[in-house]
Amino acid sequence: MKTANRVRPEKRPALSPSRCRPATSRVSNRGLSSSTANVSPSFPSGNSGRKNLTRGGAARCSSGYTPTRVAATTSPGTRTPASGPWSLSPAAVAEQGPQPELRRNPITGEWVIIAAGRGRRPHAPDRMPQKDQPDHECPFCPGREDQTPPEVCAFRDSDESDCPGWSARTIPNRFPILVSDAPGAGAGAAYSPDRQPALGASEVIIDTPVHDKPPWEVGLDQTVEMLKMYQERIVALREEKRTTYVHIIRNHLAGAASSLEHPHSQLFGLPFIPPTVDAELDGFARASLGLPGCVMCDMVEREEEATERVVAANDGFIAFCPFASRLPYETWIVPRRHQVRFEDCAELESFAGIIIQVMRGLKDGLDNPPFNYWIHTYPLRGETRPYHWHLEILPRLTVPGGLELGADVWVNIVAPEEAAARLGA
Amino acid sequence: MKTANRVRPEKRPALSPSRCRPATSRVSNRGLSSSTANVSPSFPSGNSGRKNLTRGGAARCSSGYTPTRVAATTSPGTRTPASGPWSLSPAAVAEQGPQPELRRNPITGEWVIIAAGRGRRPHAPDRMPQKDQPDHECPFCPGREDQTPPEVCAFRDSDESDCPGWSARTIPNRFPILVSDAPGAGAGAAYSPDRQPALGASEVIIDTPVHDKPPWEVGLDQTVEMLKMYQERIVALREEKRTTYVHIIRNHLAGAASSLEHPHSQLFGLPFIPPTVDAELDGFARASLGLPGCVMCDMVEREEEATERVVAANDGFIAFCPFASRLPYETWIVPRRHQVRFEDCAELESFAGIIIQVMRGLKDGLDNPPFNYWIHTYPLRGETRPYHWHLEILPRLTVPGGLELGADVWVNIVAPEEAAARLGA
Repeated sequence: MKTANRVRPEKRPALSPSRCRPATSRVSNRGLSSSTANVSPSFPSGNSGRKNLTRGGAARCSSGYTPTRVAATTSPGTRTPASGPWSLSPAAVAEQGPQPELRRNPITGEWVIIAAGRGRRPHAPDRMPQKDQPDHECPFCPGREDQTPPEVCAFRDSDESDCPGWSARTIPNRFPILVSDAPGAGAGAAYSPDRQPALGASEVIIDTPVHDKPPWEVGLDQTVEMLKMYQERIVALREEKRTTYVHIIRNHLAGAASSLEHPHSQLFGLPFIPPTVDAELDGFARASLGLPGCVMCDMVEREEEATERVVAANDGFIAFCPFASRLPYETWIVPRRHQVRFEDCAELESFAGIIIQVMRGLKDGLDNPPFNYWIHTYPLRGETRPYHWHLEILPRLTVPGGLELGADVWVNIVAPEEAAARLGA
Repeated sequence: MKTANRVRPEKRPALSPSRCRPATSRVSNRGLSSSTANVSPSFPSGNSGRKNLTRGGAARCSSGYTPTRVAATTSPGTRTPASGPWSLSPAAVAEQGPQPELRRNPITGEWVIIAAGRGRRPHAPDRMPQKDQPDHECPFCPGREDQTPPEVCAFRDSDESDCPGWSARTIPNRFPILVSDAPGAGAGAAYSPDRQPALGASEVIIDTPVHDKPPWEVGLDQTVEMLKMYQERIVALREEKRTTYVHIIRNHLAGAASSLEHPHSQLFGLPFIPPTVDAELDGFARASLGLPGCVMCDMVEREEEATERVVAANDGFIAFCPFASRLPYETWIVPRRHQVRFEDCAELESFAGIIIQVMRGLKDGLDNPPFNYWIHTYPLRGETRPYHWHLEILPRLTVPGGLELGADVWVNIVAPEEAAARLGA
């Protein structure tokens, strides 16, 4: 299980400023400013309406329901100075329109991000069909670092920044849905408990310098680099205090909402615990009662015994199609060792190894389907509740309809046992 | 507000068996059989894991996690005897494979429907691209009633069944995800608290006899007929006792998961309260505290005052893009008068009128986009909690990615105020 020491030592990321240089906006002290301080107490540890029942949630909803509109402004001066086709010119910043904000559904209590700047054009879809940009034009390729906003973090041997030589690189999202500062403190007057500036982090992680191959095709080392970058950013955001939960995802191909070909992940530093993780935290507490380990340790043990839903396994991890998979070929990768937080995982080679195996299974078994993956991990702070981090992969083979979207009831047309048989080596 | 009496009296549906003839499988007594009775107690009033915390949910999850597999069988004899391209031949029944079953996620406590019979072919997507079948081949068109399974219910002037002359017609879904009986009681032995036969109803409502125009284009009368059929089926399933919640949806165009051109809705009689409605019920209880009416009555009043998010309004109803819309152009149609259940609504002309207005806005403003709509109403039985039924419409302009699917955090790129301006007349 001690696989971490096989990683090339010279590539290990450090937390020193020289190798992981925060962008200007990220070292701002705004996280502790009065406007932010005013915002923070509004966010409970979870955003479920259920939780607010005993906290005066109703009063907040009622008083906070503000049908007036904020005259939103942009603050180009505090943003990305870089130029280039993908970076933000002042004109592009102006085009972005209003800053994103959070709005709370008064019935369910859930937060929605209104990012109107992403949809200025009529009919503009959030995610354009994926752009298969030739690598000589790709702003994510090495040598074109000046075409992106200044990097937030990069793994490279030199102390320079925004130059080639990196193995993984993080930049601010050009169309952020969560921003590190709120425009003009004056606008804050229109905010309310049900309407907040969308403060947080919205970053793009460029998984690999290679334009047309994801890390798991480039090899074990590159996959480990990508995972280290995930951890690096989570640890950095934990120290920033403002972010409550870090959600890291990858959208693979246009059918899964990817817009650029060059392999990249996205990171969202959220000021609340997302509903799905909130429900999982409640579920772990409930379902782990009376078990020797947590409910996920129990699942791992039972899946291993049953074997029929196991897709891949190695010393440190097991991948399986869960018994109650919501969609065809849904796959979870779970560390065997009980571990609450992904960023504490030292067995990254083992993790990378099983990711490679599962991705090969998807490519071979389902002809390179679009998919999304995300990491479910413990919130950055707070008391310790039962949890067991894991990665979830959802191939996108079907179109959800009114049953899924309107009732949150999922219909899976491929039994997980059949799915595992098809995906397994 | 008394608009209902403008409906042509000769077209009013009656609950008499001659005009609304239940199909054979629907009058079966299986709902009270021992196998069903064994199942029922496992379903709480809601399926949220949170609710089970004090009900021994952990013990159920642990003991009920059954990695063994049911040897599933089909029971063609009890199914649809009709023939025709869309109906179920015995061969087609055999091809359907295993009966659908419910499986519970041991962590969140939510139920998933495993309907492996819908995905027999490799890569078979749940929803094929919409089939623009010419009307001379369409099994939903009048004159081809023998090509569907026998109707569950139809509105026509004669006492005959499965013949032309109907204004709206309900048939069993050819690929049901919830079935009215479980195959072979013996198979029940493998079921457990976390694995149940998917008992319930899965029906197709043919909204209009006209092949290529939805009811709101055919006119007010036809839209009223469709809405009456929705009510009719809810009332019928309420009397059947087995179903806990009726979810009625419409998927419009292939981009919203529709598979057949002829305008049709779908009905799902669920044996549990779906998570979204469960969350709303909790939310209404929380957010209505201290308000003069319910939280929805409060929203209606405030939206009307603010006007900027209102899309349409008439005597009985208001349509608006909610303050915390999850997706661009999300629209809710809400009765002004406080009413818990949709099936109790007598103002169907007023409802039909605003549906027509909103649909015209979508067609003109967004160039006939794919969309889903669904009705959120109160569960069929149980104590009375605060609720206010409504219809939700979700145009499908964007592809959800890993933030939406993996965290249930929604990013809306069009501010609801802009959306309402575009959709409004």
